[in-house]
Amino acid sequence: MNLERLFEAPIAAVATAPGPAGVCVVRVSGAGALALGDRLTPDATGKTSDREGGTFFHAAVLHPVTRERIDDAVFLVYRAPRSYTGEDTLEIQGHGGSVSARRLLEAVLAAGARPAQPGEFTRRAFLNGRMDLTQAEAVCDLISAKTDRAAQAARMQLEGVLGRSVGACYEAMLELCAEVEHFLDFDEGELPPAFMERAAARLAAARLDLEGLAATWHEGKLLREGALVVISGRPNAGKSSLLNALLGHARAIVHEQPGTTRDVIEEFYALDGVPLRLVDTAGLRESSDAVEQEGVDRARTLIARSDLNIHVLDGSVAAGHDALEELAALPAEKTLLVLSKKDLPTFSPPPVPQGLTAVCLSTKSGEGLQPLRVALSALLELHDSVEGHAAVSQRHVTELREAITQAGAADALLAGTPAPDLALVASHLRASAEALGRIVGRVYTDDLLDAVFSRFCVGK
Amino acid sequence: MNLERLFEAPIAAVATAPGPAGVCVVRVSGAGALALGDRLTPDATGKTSDREGGTFFHAAVLHPVTRERIDDAVFLVYRAPRSYTGEDTLEIQGHGGSVSARRLLEAVLAAGARPAQPGEFTRRAFLNGRMDLTQAEAVCDLISAKTDRAAQAARMQLEGVLGRSVGACYEAMLELCAEVEHFLDFDEGELPPAFMERAAARLAAARLDLEGLAATWHEGKLLREGALVVISGRPNAGKSSLLNALLGHARAIVHEQPGTTRDVIEEFYALDGVPLRLVDTAGLRESSDAVEQEGVDRARTLIARSDLNIHVLDGSVAAGHDALEELAALPAEKTLLVLSKKDLPTFSPPPVPQGLTAVCLSTKSGEGLQPLRVALSALLELHDSVEGHAAVSQRHVTELREAITQAGAADALLAGTPAPDLALVASHLRASAEALGRIVGRVYTDDLLDAVFSRFCVGK
Repeated sequence: MNLERLFEAPIAAVATAPGPAGVCVVRVSGAGALALGDRLTPDATGKTSDREGGTFFHAAVLHPVTRERIDDAVFLVYRAPRSYTGEDTLEIQGHGGSVSARRLLEAVLAAGARPAQPGEFTRRAFLNGRMDLTQAEAVCDLISAKTDRAAQAARMQLEGVLGRSVGACYEAMLELCAEVEHFLDFDEGELPPAFMERAAARLAAARLDLEGLAATWHEGKLLREGALVVISGRPNAGKSSLLNALLGHARAIVHEQPGTTRDVIEEFYALDGVPLRLVDTAGLRESSDAVEQEGVDRARTLIARSDLNIHVLDGSVAAGHDALEELAALPAEKTLLVLSKKDLPTFSPPPVPQGLTAVCLSTKSGEGLQPLRVALSALLELHDSVEGHAAVSQRHVTELREAITQAGAADALLAGTPAPDLALVASHLRASAEALGRIVGRVYTDDLLDAVFSRFCVGK
Repeated sequence: MNLERLFEAPIAAVATAPGPAGVCVVRVSGAGALALGDRLTPDATGKTSDREGGTFFHAAVLHPVTRERIDDAVFLVYRAPRSYTGEDTLEIQGHGGSVSARRLLEAVLAAGARPAQPGEFTRRAFLNGRMDLTQAEAVCDLISAKTDRAAQAARMQLEGVLGRSVGACYEAMLELCAEVEHFLDFDEGELPPAFMERAAARLAAARLDLEGLAATWHEGKLLREGALVVISGRPNAGKSSLLNALLGHARAIVHEQPGTTRDVIEEFYALDGVPLRLVDTAGLRESSDAVEQEGVDRARTLIARSDLNIHVLDGSVAAGHDALEELAALPAEKTLLVLSKKDLPTFSPPPVPQGLTAVCLSTKSGEGLQPLRVALSALLELHDSVEGHAAVSQRHVTELREAITQAGAADALLAGTPAPDLALVASHLRASAEALGRIVGRVYTDDLLDAVFSRFCVGK
């Protein structure tokens, strides 16, 4: 444990989600966490701070100042280092519900704890050597996973798969760097035979590994953030019906009057275990209605930001000149064209511009829904299974690319003639190693930790 | 424990609220709950079923069939009767998050538990004599409490305040009934002196107590359900601005164009510790717009159902004949008239119909907001504090009224001449006692328990 923390108040937060539920858990961690329990229970309960780690007991919870009975709760006693954070920890499991949880936390704070920052428990777990930084990040990913596949990938990372891969690269890079530094003051002739060649070969192998890891980023991004899929098209083209058909229930108010969907509606949809954020937009039409126009503007912005745009065109009415021009302007790589209302006798869609993926669909009969899902999956490149390997995050890939760039620079120097400045090679190798060290947290600054843990929810 | 339950699978549910959070808790209760833990952990962890009650341990959670590692978790071991339900109970605290909690529950079900019904843990606690029925109901009230005052009232009931009061009345009534039955076969002359008079006096005292309890119903209803307050008025009268001013933030899209609010917006607002459900409605205007007309119809229905209707009238424009007629038609006992836009120079509100409570308001300056809150509180009869006494529910008051009616019938017979049929008196007293017994659960049927526990969330 960091020494300065010994003199600090323990931290506390509600560790369960808000809302009506059977139980809530308030977690308290740090020196003095157990003594804090003494101030929350009736004297007859006995001292929490005298109890053994790994035991729990049931007691009334009293407000430490007013002595009002707040709740009945189960108190779990963890003694350092055998806790999540590695510190003394008290967990109080009370009745669930938002008010109940707040009152319990208020009592704990009144007893001398301070409110925990987002991710502060896990940050302490990291600082106390209970996990590396990729594992800490996996805790956050696991909690916010929206699909089984995302949860599995997070679990894998939590078990240390990514940390071990990157840690091995980090050590290899440091070792190589130390070796190069060792020969800094030697003349070229004094170096071991084929020193440069062997160093270059080791670097090339390391770079391959790193590039393999970096290549999992697309998958990691999809699993973590989901893909933003925006449904667009003219008013009454059938956008809301398509959204409802995909989701299998009537989320959007579907109405024959054009311009019904004013607000942007976002729905979660799991496709092949990847979370999609499906957004239905206001019809793309200039409108004299100011409120509706706001919706149209927001839709345009969303399409620009999206991973994929499903553009819906009513295939049952002749497409006008404007509509055809719009079609031609759609970017093929991130557009899926849906020709809707296939069930109508007048269905007669316009020619599909070259390169554009198109699906004919009837939301009434469901015809075309399965081809639509397949096309979606292909366009979003939702490859199968992450079994056994990690899927790196944006932060990881940024560091990996830095590590690759620096390793590449070292490699180029080693391969070059005349013989390179070994000090420069070593500095590139060190920079590469440090980037890798930042991934696992062997190298870190407060700013790095702030950035990592600010993504967390309070209470973890 | 009920014998038949010995041969039943233990029940299981997620006991924490859904959503991203540090931890989730899956609770398993019933015979075999601990043995179920044996199937969820690696062999090296040792048998959960061998562990002592009141202890917990940390272990990997394996899916019992696939042996896939699902999570790491803390396992809490409770041994009957020292648990919430009074049965052997295993609580598994894993990583929070919806997917994580679902995967954990799936593993527990695969290990042999069956999904718990809503309130089934508490139902078992009641059946195993861990609490009376009013306490069981208080658990549900505490969990769903929206304000501190509601939570305090629920706590009080959970501590047994209501149960003891009603229990005492129940016993007094049973005792009186037994005494009357004892003298059934006696002639009038053989009865102890002033038997009828003393019985009548005891009944009168009991009825006073019961009526005192029944009188807390209005308060109990407000604390449990909140008051439904509907904001109505013509388009552009300032309804959304009023809602925003009360809530202190911009929830509704406020727009100068009439008819902006199409959907019914419901917001929670705590007034004197009582939860109000504030509903802003679409402007009351016949509309040619079909979607908007739907909103207007919903608003009318809501006003009819509301506890209070805040009717907003723009005081800055001359009220037309229609508007004045509307004003005159408002029911005084459940209407609060707000004359809005007091800040405008043209503010010149019409005369307020006699008996109607009215407040002049400027949401711009905030003038009139405090008087509005006071008037709201007075109209809703939000009396102060529930300190030390219970606030009964709809179910309780129904039974209390039945008990009072039956006691009244017995009382009338005792006071009448000639001497009453004691068998009839006794049957009224018994009916009265049974109604009281149903409140605390000394008398119950499966249907009664089904009705009580169906209100619960799953996992409690």
